[in-house]
Amino acid sequence: MATEPLPVELEWGEVLLSIRAAPINPADIYTVQTGGMYGTDHVAPPFVAGHDGVGVVVKVGPGVKGLAENDWVVPMKPNLGTWRSLAVAKEKDLLRLPADIMPVEQCAMLREILTAYRLLEDANLKPGDAVILNAANSTVGQLVVQLCHLLRLRAIAVVSGESDFEKTALWLRALGAAEVLLDRGSLKASGGGLVKFYSKPCLGLDAVGGASAQRPSEALADGAQLVVYGAMSGKAAQFSWHQWVFQGIQVKGFNVRRWMKDSKKKLPAMLESVAKLVNAGKLQATFTE
Amino acid sequence: MATEPLPVELEWGEVLLSIRAAPINPADIYTVQTGGMYGTDHVAPPFVAGHDGVGVVVKVGPGVKGLAENDWVVPMKPNLGTWRSLAVAKEKDLLRLPADIMPVEQCAMLREILTAYRLLEDANLKPGDAVILNAANSTVGQLVVQLCHLLRLRAIAVVSGESDFEKTALWLRALGAAEVLLDRGSLKASGGGLVKFYSKPCLGLDAVGGASAQRPSEALADGAQLVVYGAMSGKAAQFSWHQWVFQGIQVKGFNVRRWMKDSKKKLPAMLESVAKLVNAGKLQATFTE
Repeated sequence: MATEPLPVELEWGEVLLSIRAAPINPADIYTVQTGGMYGTDHVAPPFVAGHDGVGVVVKVGPGVKGLAENDWVVPMKPNLGTWRSLAVAKEKDLLRLPADIMPVEQCAMLREILTAYRLLEDANLKPGDAVILNAANSTVGQLVVQLCHLLRLRAIAVVSGESDFEKTALWLRALGAAEVLLDRGSLKASGGGLVKFYSKPCLGLDAVGGASAQRPSEALADGAQLVVYGAMSGKAAQFSWHQWVFQGIQVKGFNVRRWMKDSKKKLPAMLESVAKLVNAGKLQATFTE
Repeated sequence: MATEPLPVELEWGEVLLSIRAAPINPADIYTVQTGGMYGTDHVAPPFVAGHDGVGVVVKVGPGVKGLAENDWVVPMKPNLGTWRSLAVAKEKDLLRLPADIMPVEQCAMLREILTAYRLLEDANLKPGDAVILNAANSTVGQLVVQLCHLLRLRAIAVVSGESDFEKTALWLRALGAAEVLLDRGSLKASGGGLVKFYSKPCLGLDAVGGASAQRPSEALADGAQLVVYGAMSGKAAQFSWHQWVFQGIQVKGFNVRRWMKDSKKKLPAMLESVAKLVNAGKLQATFTE
């Protein structure tokens, strides 16, 4: 833990934030481990870690137009350094939230919530469709499972961790998972779980990469889509050429910050939908810190 | 070379074909090398090779409704065994062509022509857009280059084979390639060719796989699409997780036979468009045998 002096004056376009809550997530750990790398962004050590969190504006600098004191904000870009109590940030790097939109801890996890929401929203699914996801016990994974339940989609939740499998499986079923499978071997061959479903999954979600990405992709219906939104194993997802040419899978990457940047007009309506679900207790991100 | 007796009687739904022309293509060589494997299909040796070709119906069996004597047909599925002079085939495995639709040699290459056509047609491109493709000197590659020229797209043709590079480059430029690059190192870094273009390619086409697939994918604009339609190296295309999550690339496989099967109603109009281009001398597949 360290302290650093606050600047006497805010620069043009800057605000002073009081950070109310900040989570630790895999992207943070990756950044700390790699000494500041995250995607194409790089911060030189020493740096304040923390990509996500929620802050309240306590002071507004010159030239700030869209933010006022007491506004709630979340980061629009990584590496803002949210693991501290007070922070100076540029207005353009922040997303303003309506105050009290949802509990402060859920706001701090907004990136995870929006990611889960978009992963399903963008996939053009209909009730009864099956969705297979790995890392189903991760924050985004749990949220996807909860949203699948609300949208009447069959979530096939794949989890690693053999020792606490029974406990995890019970918990994910309680959140709404139709099936919970262990991330091992070929899910296609293991059958057990998958054959219970009327149709093969038409969406696969991968946050792990490496061999773990192969499993959901092999279980997919022909021509189905797999979305890569993380790589917790540090290894890239890999697919065989048979899967490309004969199974006709479609794979794309997803990054919610890019989506937010490209879709600013859609954000308010989306925040409202998400907040309703969270405030009604139907959608809940597990808060880590 | 071997001969086998013709059946005395045709079975229900069968026709007797006189094969007029049949090419040798990478899929044939793959099938011969692997002893009959092609995708999910498998024929047990000994078998007659040849996936493609054009035949004329010389005799119609009982129950055949859509074909008559003298009709031209091409295979709708692999492994028909076109490397022979006479063949018995099921009506349902054949696509009827209007007689004299285009030169017989071009009909025999119809799968390549339709592949090239669809790869561009399905990509939602506009004049001036850049398309990057490897194996640009393959049959499909040449056809893509010709079509790019007709559609005012900038074809960035990537070819292997250092020794005859100058000759190949001249030839592909004559077909309409905007740029010809050697399939080696990082095309992004080599810059030379790519920086001449106003915008990064928004479509990549990969028929090789392995390291060769990485090159066009790295050169793509953020969020662009890469289509895998072959794997001549026998290795799967591989992409880094940064490409998925931060470059936001979208990769899908394409198989023209699947497309034909799923889009029977669209086929006549497509055949007519393609035939016009071929008959006008604007689109020409190099005939191998």
